[in-house]
Amino acid sequence: MNLDELYSELTLKGGAKLVLLVLDGLGDLATKEQGYLTPLEAAHTPNLDKLAKDSAQGRMIPTAPGITPGSGPGHLGLFGYDPLEFQVGRGVIEALGLGMELKAGDVCARANFATLDAKGIVTDRRAGRIPTETCEKLVALLSAKIKKIGETEVLIKAGKEHRFVVVFRGKGLEGPLTDADPNREGFPIPTVKPRDPANAKQKKMAKLIADFYKAALPILAKEVPANGFLMRGIAHQPEIPLFEDRYKLKPACLAVYPMYKGLAQLVGMEKIEGPQTIAEQFHRYLAEYDKYDFFFIHYKYTDKAGEDGNFAAKKKAIEDFDAALPILLQKRPDVLAITGDHSTPVAMKGHSWHPQPVLLHSAISGSDKLDRFTETGANSGSLSVFPAKFLIRLMQANGRLFDKFGA
Amino acid sequence: MNLDELYSELTLKGGAKLVLLVLDGLGDLATKEQGYLTPLEAAHTPNLDKLAKDSAQGRMIPTAPGITPGSGPGHLGLFGYDPLEFQVGRGVIEALGLGMELKAGDVCARANFATLDAKGIVTDRRAGRIPTETCEKLVALLSAKIKKIGETEVLIKAGKEHRFVVVFRGKGLEGPLTDADPNREGFPIPTVKPRDPANAKQKKMAKLIADFYKAALPILAKEVPANGFLMRGIAHQPEIPLFEDRYKLKPACLAVYPMYKGLAQLVGMEKIEGPQTIAEQFHRYLAEYDKYDFFFIHYKYTDKAGEDGNFAAKKKAIEDFDAALPILLQKRPDVLAITGDHSTPVAMKGHSWHPQPVLLHSAISGSDKLDRFTETGANSGSLSVFPAKFLIRLMQANGRLFDKFGA
Repeated sequence: MNLDELYSELTLKGGAKLVLLVLDGLGDLATKEQGYLTPLEAAHTPNLDKLAKDSAQGRMIPTAPGITPGSGPGHLGLFGYDPLEFQVGRGVIEALGLGMELKAGDVCARANFATLDAKGIVTDRRAGRIPTETCEKLVALLSAKIKKIGETEVLIKAGKEHRFVVVFRGKGLEGPLTDADPNREGFPIPTVKPRDPANAKQKKMAKLIADFYKAALPILAKEVPANGFLMRGIAHQPEIPLFEDRYKLKPACLAVYPMYKGLAQLVGMEKIEGPQTIAEQFHRYLAEYDKYDFFFIHYKYTDKAGEDGNFAAKKKAIEDFDAALPILLQKRPDVLAITGDHSTPVAMKGHSWHPQPVLLHSAISGSDKLDRFTETGANSGSLSVFPAKFLIRLMQANGRLFDKFGA
Repeated sequence: MNLDELYSELTLKGGAKLVLLVLDGLGDLATKEQGYLTPLEAAHTPNLDKLAKDSAQGRMIPTAPGITPGSGPGHLGLFGYDPLEFQVGRGVIEALGLGMELKAGDVCARANFATLDAKGIVTDRRAGRIPTETCEKLVALLSAKIKKIGETEVLIKAGKEHRFVVVFRGKGLEGPLTDADPNREGFPIPTVKPRDPANAKQKKMAKLIADFYKAALPILAKEVPANGFLMRGIAHQPEIPLFEDRYKLKPACLAVYPMYKGLAQLVGMEKIEGPQTIAEQFHRYLAEYDKYDFFFIHYKYTDKAGEDGNFAAKKKAIEDFDAALPILLQKRPDVLAITGDHSTPVAMKGHSWHPQPVLLHSAISGSDKLDRFTETGANSGSLSVFPAKFLIRLMQANGRLFDKFGA
């Protein structure tokens, strides 16, 4: 029997409230340069400390040993979906990041404005990194003239500098396709092809991309320097079982950044719009408490500081989070998980594979008798090191939302 | 998507230097008789201690919980090949242990000289454990008279006492076959059969074994007591993806004993011949540093002492290793892993399944804040307990040799 089938069979409908607090990129490394302390260890966190005593701790492998995940696989894992089984194309992630509302079956592509010579050879893959305003102007031009290709709706949205996204919405379309990008200057834009030559929906999609180029290139012909464009990561939004069907929990998302709202929406969470700070997010949780069973609350600033290699900023982001935590605890959920979607070590200025620490608190989580929530403490916690996709299963169990298996 | 495929897709070609130091059979047990200290814990290891502070630690399961591996699966796991997926026949391991150079497709068999009565009944399966010199004499006799069976080349090499190895080198041959061994006295030598009756190459190989017996038995007919022989573990060298193709790392092996050179050669590592002591191995590493990306350095004496049940000798072997370590550190690799291929507890006088400790050191390994490298300390390390086949993936990650997964 497939394990997901077993979980599904044992899943009970109950009244428990579950909260998943994600401090993006929370995990970090103790290094000599940082006095052998991680930002989480260095931070003053009286509220987390108080929770730690009555919680279980452990560390989570986002995808597989040594694999550094992007935000997509990182969050899908936290939502209980195996990131290897459910892969989300880069075009989809990019569209979500721009706040586009995607529907099942939409095919998305990342695109760049580029410069072509008279023979169609790519002479600058980024069109001299045109300013965002120019990009917005060109996208408006394209959007005004191209609303459909045949029966397929086309949505175009500008990103930063030379970047934009194209979404194709229609029936019988599928990715992934090869890229319309030579990946270096001096070559023409290659014709896209189905990744699976036997797939008729991919073939149809490849034809659509060719038609889109035919319609769009003449519109840009006289623009300087952005008289062309490249398309990459052309893929459809995968069919993902809805969160509510999978866990029998009505889920809500309290995130500030579009990417995380988009990822939550991919699995069918309801987006609660409005809050801009973690304190506002927690207040809104209090207000919405009765309406949902599961709250995904996303906090971005730990990751940002990690990406910047700024130890003090990461420590501060954790302290700000800790200071706001008592608001949430005014209505203590039955199950509270606090973790990251991956590590973003200050020393690496980027995402990493190092297992992120996780704290799990419920009336039956047990206590690991730890005084604080830290990477080093979590190493010896009762949750051990485990794949992140199981966190939600432990949350369900702590909410008494599983029947017994066998007699 | 298959995990190995994902690793392969994300693997980058980089300039990092990786070193895998294997203290054979390193892992041990703390027992009352040994004052609750393992040899690693009892040993004076100032150089390992210094490394520990800036390293991550954990323990590794060689194959699966409770499974005691031989050297074959033990090392294949360390090289990143699932020992269940890539099984190496005993005949192959035995041939490698005798220093035979195998080629892809070679079929190898372990053989014993034995005593037969006039009717061909096995009366002594080990021919009274004849001395090694007698074995060598008989093998020379067979080798002189049998160089080929049909088109197939036959290589015979003496081992210790009654043991020898036969290698068949030709086209279209395959194992595994059933044994030419009744497994007890009082029965004739059974005819070997294909393990898979539908496999034509195995059928051809079974016929070859029968022909080999027809040619060899008359040569031995008048020998006393070794007038016959048994053959077991008849298998071909499996097709194993080459290390260099799999990891994009140019690998070298610095081992003293033939078995380990052979296992390294199985996955396509280059053997560096010459060094006889660990200090010489480390000096040679310094000399070859620029030529390779990955060094497998094997140290046998921890295992030997464990097999002998000699606590003091195992402790001493570890101390000797530690004393030589500064030579290696003159050119500190980007990633250094120190571990065993399995445990060989003094209290058991043999290999065991107990997870071996592992230390992983790099600029981004993080620190587990441990003062020493020990089994007990490793239990609380950030690497946790994990299957040995993932060590090389963590080494790749620490060498920044993986691209990010997803956006």
